Amino acid sequence: MEGYVRKVEINCDMGEGFGRWKMGPDEELIKLIDYANIACGFHAGDPSLMLKTVRLAKEHGVKIGAHPGLQDLFGFGRRKIEIHPDDMYAMILYQVGALKAMLDAEGVPLNHIKPHGELFFYMQRDLAIMDAVLRACAVFGVPVFGSKGTDHQGAMCKKYGLVFVEEAYTDIQYDQNKKLLPVGQSKMATVEDIYSRTISIGLEDTVMDNTGSPLKIGFEGQPFLFCIHSDMPTALENLKACRKGVDEINAKRGW
Amino acid sequence: MEGYVRKVEINCDMGEGFGRWKMGPDEELIKLIDYANIACGFHAGDPSLMLKTVRLAKEHGVKIGAHPGLQDLFGFGRRKIEIHPDDMYAMILYQVGALKAMLDAEGVPLNHIKPHGELFFYMQRDLAIMDAVLRACAVFGVPVFGSKGTDHQGAMCKKYGLVFVEEAYTDIQYDQNKKLLPVGQSKMATVEDIYSRTISIGLEDTVMDNTGSPLKIGFEGQPFLFCIHSDMPTALENLKACRKGVDEINAKRGW
Amino acid sequence: MEGYVRKVEINCDMGEGFGRWKMGPDEELIKLIDYANIACGFHAGDPSLMLKTVRLAKEHGVKIGAHPGLQDLFGFGRRKIEIHPDDMYAMILYQVGALKAMLDAEGVPLNHIKPHGELFFYMQRDLAIMDAVLRACAVFGVPVFGSKGTDHQGAMCKKYGLVFVEEAYTDIQYDQNKKLLPVGQSKMATVEDIYSRTISIGLEDTVMDNTGSPLKIGFEGQPFLFCIHSDMPTALENLKACRKGVDEINAKRGW
Amino acid sequence: MEGYVRKVEINCDMGEGFGRWKMGPDEELIKLIDYANIACGFHAGDPSLMLKTVRLAKEHGVKIGAHPGLQDLFGFGRRKIEIHPDDMYAMILYQVGALKAMLDAEGVPLNHIKPHGELFFYMQRDLAIMDAVLRACAVFGVPVFGSKGTDHQGAMCKKYGLVFVEEAYTDIQYDQNKKLLPVGQSKMATVEDIYSRTISIGLEDTVMDNTGSPLKIGFEGQPFLFCIHSDMPTALENLKACRKGVDEINAKRGW
Repeated sequence: MEGYVRKVEINCDMGEGFGRWKMGPDEELIKLIDYANIACGFHAGDPSLMLKTVRLAKEHGVKIGAHPGLQDLFGFGRRKIEIHPDDMYAMILYQVGALKAMLDAEGVPLNHIKPHGELFFYMQRDLAIMDAVLRACAVFGVPVFGSKGTDHQGAMCKKYGLVFVEEAYTDIQYDQNKKLLPVGQSKMATVEDIYSRTISIGLEDTVMDNTGSPLKIGFEGQPFLFCIHSDMPTALENLKACRKGVDEINAKRGW
Repeated sequence: MEGYVRKVEINCDMGEGFGRWKMGPDEELIKLIDYANIACGFHAGDPSLMLKTVRLAKEHGVKIGAHPGLQDLFGFGRRKIEIHPDDMYAMILYQVGALKAMLDAEGVPLNHIKPHGELFFYMQRDLAIMDAVLRACAVFGVPVFGSKGTDHQGAMCKKYGLVFVEEAYTDIQYDQNKKLLPVGQSKMATVEDIYSRTISIGLEDTVMDNTGSPLKIGFEGQPFLFCIHSDMPTALENLKACRKGVDEINAKRGW
Repeated sequence: MEGYVRKVEINCDMGEGFGRWKMGPDEELIKLIDYANIACGFHAGDPSLMLKTVRLAKEHGVKIGAHPGLQDLFGFGRRKIEIHPDDMYAMILYQVGALKAMLDAEGVPLNHIKPHGELFFYMQRDLAIMDAVLRACAVFGVPVFGSKGTDHQGAMCKKYGLVFVEEAYTDIQYDQNKKLLPVGQSKMATVEDIYSRTISIGLEDTVMDNTGSPLKIGFEGQPFLFCIHSDMPTALENLKACRKGVDEINAKRGW
Repeated sequence: MEGYVRKVEINCDMGEGFGRWKMGPDEELIKLIDYANIACGFHAGDPSLMLKTVRLAKEHGVKIGAHPGLQDLFGFGRRKIEIHPDDMYAMILYQVGALKAMLDAEGVPLNHIKPHGELFFYMQRDLAIMDAVLRACAVFGVPVFGSKGTDHQGAMCKKYGLVFVEEAYTDIQYDQNKKLLPVGQSKMATVEDIYSRTISIGLEDTVMDNTGSPLKIGFEGQPFLFCIHSDMPTALENLKACRKGVDEINAKRGW
């Protein structure tokens, strides 16, 4: 993380509709977050929605990152698809480049890249895929956002001169090995869960895992990011609970 | 044109396959051209093919332009599709940005943008579309390639500070108003047609139109570009005939 | 119509989501309608959603029709796309055949075919397209649903031995020539509008057009269908208002 | 097989282009085969090409089967994609139903179903997928074609009342367990290889595996099918060699 974030902040996936179909309440969520990860048309998003979302984030002073995913509108980028690392490298360049052009048009910088859903899990499982994705990210030279808990990506980011910014989730569960459960396998969180997890991760560096045992996250008192899923039915309430917790953490820490 | 081209040169569309499907004999054509227009995934092309084609052009010292089109793999970007100018603006940013990232990765500059097929015709028919496309091109600040014969685009390019580089075609026909016939409506050209049209356009500034009458093209003794279709079955032979003519023109002109 | 419908009934488009994206509240709407028009994957819908919607309709005893559209997920089948009549013929066979297989699997018959959005308008504008669509419908031998107000389709249906079942809309407006305005150009209707239009069309055979003048629809006291858009934000309230009106009409008429 | 085939015959995949892109020389291949497996738009093929290919096969008296695949134009249906069995069931109904409508339009029967590429391999690896595919095939009640060498599919076909017709390949290799190697991992076959493998499988029920050891195929003197890949550059020559061998086998056997 190396000082990239100065306090606890929140990022959220945005622009995950397609054509006439909407996903999250982006216009509401945008008011409560620090970073927007904008879908790039492969798992969700279309050029018009991307540009609209760039403008929405710009208007609210929210920093913008690319949110590339697997080419799978039907499965929302959450299904496993076998991809050759060479194809993956080209697919990441394609998606992030497409968003970058919109940011150039609007005069705002690309702040970070955050791999979506199964793309992120694929990177954890397959080092050749991790390498291909990070090699593509290195072309843009911005930090990579991803969940805490994997050892390889920090090291590999370093290899490519990339900053890796770690996140915690409070609306899905961790297993005992600090791996995030896929959305579909994770127990639905209440707003009380979200708030209490936010506080316990932020102030005590621990959270209950999916077996109910306390799990040390490992931020070691340093600032980090929370991520809230914008595509859950309760997204707005979840985000409010997380924001409340985050503001309290920063106040208490003096960040 | 304003001195953009210093002699008569040739551009060709490249990377117009998709997945396992091939279109032109790119590996052969690339040896005979000066500029490659690379398809950006909407009418043809996929990220891997785009990157492969970028590398092929780079290897042969061929300058690279983006070749955006309508989102229509089935119709190869040659069918009319109604697109809102706001959507069009975003679609051009998306496609050219995607290619630009690959050029950045390979360390070669984006040289120009050339609208494909029906996108080009749509621009001629609809000024709001012309405006949207050129406004997106202006984000990249590179010359726009397009066929001679339309008045608006030169003026509109100027509005956005863009250089408009005019081309002539020898493998499809012009009508009496100097408008290009769509590929499907144009009479198949022989290699002899291509060679003689190349010479007559290059040295005499005229060509036979589709009624058999001589048509003044209007390059007025200035350098310009030829374009050869890479997706015709006879593409390689056509290109050789055009290259021969072009080399003779430049020799004669002392360019 | 030739006695196809015995009383005033309601049809509604269903299954117009895609993957994780939802459109209308199908589970609620299905309880209030007589016929479901199921999207076939071109303008909306995917195989899994189609099958799920077939089962939903079957469970509620709602008759099922195919709802083919233009191949345009981004534009929801509401943009103009140029399609060769031969391609159109094949596209209709493809879509309706795909749904038919699911109906066969579930042991329920295909009841009708209703062209979606711009496909319907395209048929009205272009007789070759009308011919191609109806020729494809004739392969299935079921009635075609479509809005009242065009002369050609009744005659052309007859040519192919097809029954044409006429509909009225109450949530979008008619122009003075009894043509429906596209959704985007039509004034938003209140539930009061819907109810009063339902009653006036059902009992008086007239409705206010978009200029505020009374327009004779021409059902001439015969039973017919209403259609309610399921993709409007107010779809469920609209449908309830229409259902109320329809039930009153049938009670009054003794149907 | 239960007497489904009366002599050794040949099937071939057809209609595997898309839009302007061609794959095999279908017009030539069709003259040399007994069964055409027509791609259904998911891994290749589009509605127009499907209908054109149906007509081509009909014209040459070639029996027609559906050739469904994974939804993956970019990967030509040869990449692994995770699909829920419920989705798979719907996807098979969708594809085969789409082709069936074209056959109905042309008045020719659906003869069989043959899963394509990775779909076939997926069925072998995952019994829930095998079950979903065969359950969908059972809706159409036609035989399923697939390569010899797997035990489950014969039994599962029986469960659904389906005839399973076994094939042998001569243009790709078998491993020691009688499993076919994917095209990309298989050594390129010469026409001499094809002919000699055809004869040895047809008359001696054996073929050299990828290690050079003789492998018993297990047709036990009963008629069966050969399949030739239509998408290999040497497809036409391969097919001619196979046809020659097949005709000799049938002559010798008196079939």
